[in-house]
Amino acid sequence: MISFQEQYENYKRSVDKALAALPWESGRLSRCMAYSLLGGGKRLRPVIVLAAAALVGGDPAKIVSPACGLELIHTYSLIHDDLPCMDDDDTRRGLPASHIAFGEAAAVLAGDALLTLGLELVASPLPGIPPERGLRAVAVVAAAAGWRGMAGGQMLDMDGPPEKPDLAWLEHMQQMKTGALFVAAAELGAILAGAAESELKGLRVYAGALGAAFQIKDDMLDLEGESETLGKPAGSDLKHSKLTYPAILGPERAAAVLRQKTEEAVSALGVWGEEAVFLRELALKAADREK
Amino acid sequence: MISFQEQYENYKRSVDKALAALPWESGRLSRCMAYSLLGGGKRLRPVIVLAAAALVGGDPAKIVSPACGLELIHTYSLIHDDLPCMDDDDTRRGLPASHIAFGEAAAVLAGDALLTLGLELVASPLPGIPPERGLRAVAVVAAAAGWRGMAGGQMLDMDGPPEKPDLAWLEHMQQMKTGALFVAAAELGAILAGAAESELKGLRVYAGALGAAFQIKDDMLDLEGESETLGKPAGSDLKHSKLTYPAILGPERAAAVLRQKTEEAVSALGVWGEEAVFLRELALKAADREK
Repeated sequence: MISFQEQYENYKRSVDKALAALPWESGRLSRCMAYSLLGGGKRLRPVIVLAAAALVGGDPAKIVSPACGLELIHTYSLIHDDLPCMDDDDTRRGLPASHIAFGEAAAVLAGDALLTLGLELVASPLPGIPPERGLRAVAVVAAAAGWRGMAGGQMLDMDGPPEKPDLAWLEHMQQMKTGALFVAAAELGAILAGAAESELKGLRVYAGALGAAFQIKDDMLDLEGESETLGKPAGSDLKHSKLTYPAILGPERAAAVLRQKTEEAVSALGVWGEEAVFLRELALKAADREK
Repeated sequence: MISFQEQYENYKRSVDKALAALPWESGRLSRCMAYSLLGGGKRLRPVIVLAAAALVGGDPAKIVSPACGLELIHTYSLIHDDLPCMDDDDTRRGLPASHIAFGEAAAVLAGDALLTLGLELVASPLPGIPPERGLRAVAVVAAAAGWRGMAGGQMLDMDGPPEKPDLAWLEHMQQMKTGALFVAAAELGAILAGAAESELKGLRVYAGALGAAFQIKDDMLDLEGESETLGKPAGSDLKHSKLTYPAILGPERAAAVLRQKTEEAVSALGVWGEEAVFLRELALKAADREK
């Protein structure tokens, strides 16, 4: 049987290939988009799309294009989050941030254009897949990225809580800012593959818990981490007095919540048994990763 | 028979009503989005959507929601264009620009969220309309708004031409920045209403010429205009050394191009005869407007 790592690399390779094959041009906007999109990254969200489709009996190879859409939307959020008026981060993945490399106007527009192209890719016509699935997928992904999802979560993060931040506030903010797009990734794959509503429900719980676990681990790595390993200045969350799990709960309670979320994710896959081995491993590895 | 003005007001009223009925919330992001979206505007793009649908035999009342999507996308572009790193305009429609009223971070995110919600509205499931039309509409609108359309045009406008600007460069930039969304508006209405490809072709020519005429008139009004009438400082294009039709061609040749584009728009409606009276009047009024 193919190992988790091999399967991950297979998925990632199909995504990287499709991203590189987009019709890039020589103009500044195109170069600025490609700089952030093709400069590396785990491709975690598209991998979730493909694995969710496979889990419910779909063919991942058919939906690489919409899966890539989620990576474009994720990349747009990184570019806009790094802007001087937001988190004001000068580096990303060990390289100058988009607005440092191309200027602020280009960075704003590259984010806008990646979001737009991302949703266009989600709406790709797919041979053999009924169009009502595609239309539903667009609505799900747009809702997850928008005012009640990722963009709304970033606004909450910028504004901070009305009173003393507690776990409930942090979970709410994180669910919007990070969790919603993880959930949309699982839903996108499942919807396009024609999943039953009960399967969608299980995958939503899985991806929501995975997203939370992923963010907690990110926060912990940021606090402990080395600049080199993370590709962004260590402790940069602290510098911005960002409200993170370890900052609010302390490192030990944060680690306990990480374990709990990972267990939730794994447990939501229960009905699938051994068929869900890839997504289960993904949750365990995400909690245990070093960058 | 109902007059042009009455018909325009009917369309506009249905759009304004649907925009006001979106599930607005009390949070800062929602207020920032509503501030720019509900603060007035001609609703020209959604009106084109509805009129194009009616022209090819569709029922405009059924597609108000996707038509509103185009107004959200237009509003996002105004908010981002006004940002300090772009055109740095402090006022819009006689009120403080979004980033002045709510701060830059909120303005960037409100633009992002309006774009996202706009595409979500274009993907609205519509009773009685086949989903493949909706999916095609999303792809068309996203393409028009993105790197090869509106966002790409704004980048060209910011960067300026490689050499001395000529009419060809200006038309290319304008077609991307303004024209593409006008064309998408006509296509959106026509596609959802099930237009024949030959009808789509005619409407594309119409809307492209209308968009160009609209922009030339806008440029001319900016040059001549009073702050009060326009809702933005008179000559603000000049202040930013924006490349406009009158700046490059002089006022007389710009007026001639305006007449030519208007004639092109009207002539593209020829096959429809009297049925196209509303869209014909729209082109004539747009060329003759005072704000």
